[in-house]
Amino acid sequence: MDIIVCKFGGTSLADAKQFKKIKAIIKENPARKFVVASAPGKRFAKDIKVTDLFLSCYEKAVSDTDFEENLKRARERFEDIIRDLELEFNLDKEFDKLRNHLTNCPDKEYMASRGEYLNSMILASYLGFTFVDPEWCVCFNEDGTLNEAITKRTMSAALHPLSNAVIAGFYGADINGKIRTFSRGGSDITGSLVACAAAADLYENWTDVSGLLAADPSIVESPKSVEFLSYRELRTLSYMGARVLHTDAILPAAQRGIPINIRNTNRPNDNGTMIVRKLPKGEKRYPVTGVAGRKGMSVIQVEKVMVSDGSGFSAIMLDILKDRNLSFEQCLTGIDSITLVIRADLLNPCKEELLKEIEDTLNPDYIGLKENISMIAIVGEKGTESSDANVKVLEAIADKKIEISTINQGAGKLNLLVGVPDERYEEAIRAIYSAIEEN
Amino acid sequence: MDIIVCKFGGTSLADAKQFKKIKAIIKENPARKFVVASAPGKRFAKDIKVTDLFLSCYEKAVSDTDFEENLKRARERFEDIIRDLELEFNLDKEFDKLRNHLTNCPDKEYMASRGEYLNSMILASYLGFTFVDPEWCVCFNEDGTLNEAITKRTMSAALHPLSNAVIAGFYGADINGKIRTFSRGGSDITGSLVACAAAADLYENWTDVSGLLAADPSIVESPKSVEFLSYRELRTLSYMGARVLHTDAILPAAQRGIPINIRNTNRPNDNGTMIVRKLPKGEKRYPVTGVAGRKGMSVIQVEKVMVSDGSGFSAIMLDILKDRNLSFEQCLTGIDSITLVIRADLLNPCKEELLKEIEDTLNPDYIGLKENISMIAIVGEKGTESSDANVKVLEAIADKKIEISTINQGAGKLNLLVGVPDERYEEAIRAIYSAIEEN
Repeated sequence: MDIIVCKFGGTSLADAKQFKKIKAIIKENPARKFVVASAPGKRFAKDIKVTDLFLSCYEKAVSDTDFEENLKRARERFEDIIRDLELEFNLDKEFDKLRNHLTNCPDKEYMASRGEYLNSMILASYLGFTFVDPEWCVCFNEDGTLNEAITKRTMSAALHPLSNAVIAGFYGADINGKIRTFSRGGSDITGSLVACAAAADLYENWTDVSGLLAADPSIVESPKSVEFLSYRELRTLSYMGARVLHTDAILPAAQRGIPINIRNTNRPNDNGTMIVRKLPKGEKRYPVTGVAGRKGMSVIQVEKVMVSDGSGFSAIMLDILKDRNLSFEQCLTGIDSITLVIRADLLNPCKEELLKEIEDTLNPDYIGLKENISMIAIVGEKGTESSDANVKVLEAIADKKIEISTINQGAGKLNLLVGVPDERYEEAIRAIYSAIEEN
Repeated sequence: MDIIVCKFGGTSLADAKQFKKIKAIIKENPARKFVVASAPGKRFAKDIKVTDLFLSCYEKAVSDTDFEENLKRARERFEDIIRDLELEFNLDKEFDKLRNHLTNCPDKEYMASRGEYLNSMILASYLGFTFVDPEWCVCFNEDGTLNEAITKRTMSAALHPLSNAVIAGFYGADINGKIRTFSRGGSDITGSLVACAAAADLYENWTDVSGLLAADPSIVESPKSVEFLSYRELRTLSYMGARVLHTDAILPAAQRGIPINIRNTNRPNDNGTMIVRKLPKGEKRYPVTGVAGRKGMSVIQVEKVMVSDGSGFSAIMLDILKDRNLSFEQCLTGIDSITLVIRADLLNPCKEELLKEIEDTLNPDYIGLKENISMIAIVGEKGTESSDANVKVLEAIADKKIEISTINQGAGKLNLLVGVPDERYEEAIRAIYSAIEEN
């Protein structure tokens, strides 16, 4: 392995103790050349993240109230780290600049990015690595979306001359030089972009859990962690709400086929979860990798005799949604019926209107709306061999007398999607998990 | 019950013995005022239907070969009935007219309709009922489709003055007076239209089976017959290939909420199957009503990361099919994937082109095609309470190690649709049937 890109999350960089762990990890393997850093996170449950302190400075500045107290608290976090690590690092100039910014032209995204900026400079100094400011190599469009094509070129250009570097996560700048932050995925995306630009052999995503868990630990007691996961499985699980990597974050690395290893800064000897394009063969892996879900879905069901005699009905239905820019989670057409699963927060503002439009346009025999439905994905790349697993899962739900509103398993069989009432979501997750765990 | 419309199929009207059974049935209940009759069907397995004899006369006439032998055989069928029933009924004029038609201006639909025409006249004479020729009251459009709105008015006008009548099934005429026949559903549609026009309380469809069977008797040994069935269940079962009533035939009666009773002319004491808008309440009915399926499906699966973030992808996909006028049986969208189930006979002529168009238009991450798939529908209006039943069904398939390619259960839960390989279709039907039968 020649090049490993390591991204460290906020809790991995919360204080000097964490910085020391990181240094040990990086020094242990010389391939760990490029490091992407977050802002200092929480040190304990009720702690405040540095980024939140900076954002409250911004809020106070725009409402013309005094931001000094919060600015001071943020500075103390960095000063503590610098002092405990015995670094020569003076923050005077940086905080003068911040005070100046807040007084004259406070900007939210700029303030939101300063935690990463300062923390990465300090980490670079501590590791003896070069600091790379993403202001110059993570390029946003004016609408705030990432310009991935240009970023790949600028990031490659920035990294090419360097033998090692710490790159600040979470932000970049647009063509006008304005600082922009990722709306979702944060520093994980930066890490993924750096891994691509560096043509890394591995992207290590260091966090405070030993990999992806097979179920939400706030619902299921001590779920097992997943050893291998395909990109597609991760994508599905994180889409459905499993908390590890944001959906967007895996894309750049996945496109290049770079494996992603989720690891635990506090337990560096754990293997964590390895996320790969193709699962290793011959492994005796249980067909179900994990289970995750989302509450707050609405299910619209439209029936019209003879729907299936022409694709036209479904196409009209989807055009109605497209015209409203209303995205859906699932669409199932059967004989004479179409079922749409839509997030309630997206549907609710136009619910009555939409139902009326469907009624007027399609003149269906029946329209039904079910609300407060949770969608549960049972995910497993080896689904092709898992008719038994599907049965076990549905049996587990049926045993609890939980009403199933929809079942969807496409030919890819990466996942089985099952709808249950919101109020029985946790119970269903536990039932499914113990059914798949038993094996 | 004031008015019952009875439709008798071809085997119920194949010979004098059957005519006598029919008379007994009709005379038993004075509400049976309107009778719709088919042409004489087969009397034994290798027999030829009268309509097929007439059609072969047409084929011979247009190819300028002698049709007399076949015309004579057709006439003999009617003469036998007339003689055995001791009726005063002379066919000379009718057969002169037919001979004249065949010689001068042979028309396929006209010839196809003469079996019903003659048989209904004979039955009317035998019952002492008025004969109603649908040439005047079943109205087709010039494109050969039924003009339902006008038919309702003309049929009502024709029946209103009559206290009883025999109406010939299967045909009508268009605005130019040309005889037109139903392309599908045949006399069952006529029966359904008559039931509507007569504002019947019940539409009895007399055939040679004691109602709908819960599974195909050529696959499952002696399946039980279904006592009650909703219109929607029937529609689904007949769509999936269960042989009783054609899909189109139930529509007019269903729209008016007229119950349909499928009965057996040869076992008139059997209750048969009652098809109703709403199933009777409180009945201890097993949630699964029946199982049926269709072979020869192809399953196209398209994957593209982030599909579900916008309805656009699916809408484009369905537009591609719509532009090709290619209808699909099912469409399932999941996270990042769309699965389409299409009849192979429809897909095959444009398979390569279509896959290429999807590739070019949508640039998906993956396209897969599975062929020779059977779709099995497990139908039951009480599906809402049937999570257990779904589990049993899937378990039965899994136990046989039959690979399931798709599972689709929309929110209506009228049916569960499961894809299996064609070569294991019969085995799957048997396994499912015994799983649902056990209860």
